[in-house]
Amino acid sequence: MRSSNRIEEIRSKAAELFANHGYGAVGVAELGEAVGLGKGALYHHISSKEELLYDISTRYIERLIENGRDIIAKELDPSERIKALSRAMINVVYRHRAEMTVCFREIHSLSGERHQRVSQLHNDYQQLWIDTIAMGVAQKKFRSIERTAIKGIMGMFFYSFLWLKPEGAQNADQVGDVFSDLILHSLVPSND
Amino acid sequence: MRSSNRIEEIRSKAAELFANHGYGAVGVAELGEAVGLGKGALYHHISSKEELLYDISTRYIERLIENGRDIIAKELDPSERIKALSRAMINVVYRHRAEMTVCFREIHSLSGERHQRVSQLHNDYQQLWIDTIAMGVAQKKFRSIERTAIKGIMGMFFYSFLWLKPEGAQNADQVGDVFSDLILHSLVPSND
Repeated sequence: MRSSNRIEEIRSKAAELFANHGYGAVGVAELGEAVGLGKGALYHHISSKEELLYDISTRYIERLIENGRDIIAKELDPSERIKALSRAMINVVYRHRAEMTVCFREIHSLSGERHQRVSQLHNDYQQLWIDTIAMGVAQKKFRSIERTAIKGIMGMFFYSFLWLKPEGAQNADQVGDVFSDLILHSLVPSND
Repeated sequence: MRSSNRIEEIRSKAAELFANHGYGAVGVAELGEAVGLGKGALYHHISSKEELLYDISTRYIERLIENGRDIIAKELDPSERIKALSRAMINVVYRHRAEMTVCFREIHSLSGERHQRVSQLHNDYQQLWIDTIAMGVAQKKFRSIERTAIKGIMGMFFYSFLWLKPEGAQNADQVGDVFSDLILHSLVPSND
């Protein structure tokens, strides 16, 4: 197996174990066993368990940010942007549920610079929403809402890994549309 | 120290350790050390680490449910109910942040019956919101929203432990009001 495939396999298995049992409860030996490698051989592929957590935690949030920037570059209507951002987010949770669970639930397990970097990525992602809402406000299509309300909106998405069931009745786009519908209704300007 | 005080102290310290390091990463020996008890003496007060996690996880969600039922019994206007439910929820997160972090983040660490029971409590709490929104719909004050949207609303609150700072600029009632304002706007019936 090529080394890049091997590291993919290790990351994927680690995400699954961390999501199911918690990062703190999974040892390097257990992880090695799950991918059929001894501790020594495993350390040939990863530098530490925390580095692995960091890789898992940054990867999909970086992808969400990139993807969000693409949406913003292409889509000039703020309501359509919110619909697209919402679908994109739920699609990532559907497709990479273990990784997103780890990304949102285990951030406290990262230390120092790594913790800061993942927090910064969460902020960068949130900024895409802040900018989109600000644009809608500037175009008088949305009412202005507080930063705290935007944190609440992020929570709708960030918490969804806990209950979203990809095998459920609604597909990712449908769930994304329910969320964006709620958000867009909450942004309707008042009549006065 | 009376035994009931001692168990309170153990629960509180355990919640703090679980919130900061993750349930899986905290051993019984470490917990004993934090409260100045040997493993044997600690097991005089608790039956297992998981039982302790269960106690921490059920306590404040049970309190939220009780409190929510009181609000519903007293407050007949659906908008006022939502405001009161929202304030009550954020107040609990402000006052018992470690416990709420553990309750929402470590539910996967509970097994079998305990896991079911805590999931059931989360559902019971959500039901208070479902009933309140249904009442508003019946009174034609709210538009109807999907169950998935209500899950999203729960996420706003359930995720807040991660970023709410009781030492921040807004107090719990203010944050609660920002959230209920967002929710109430999202429930405004359409004109058609």
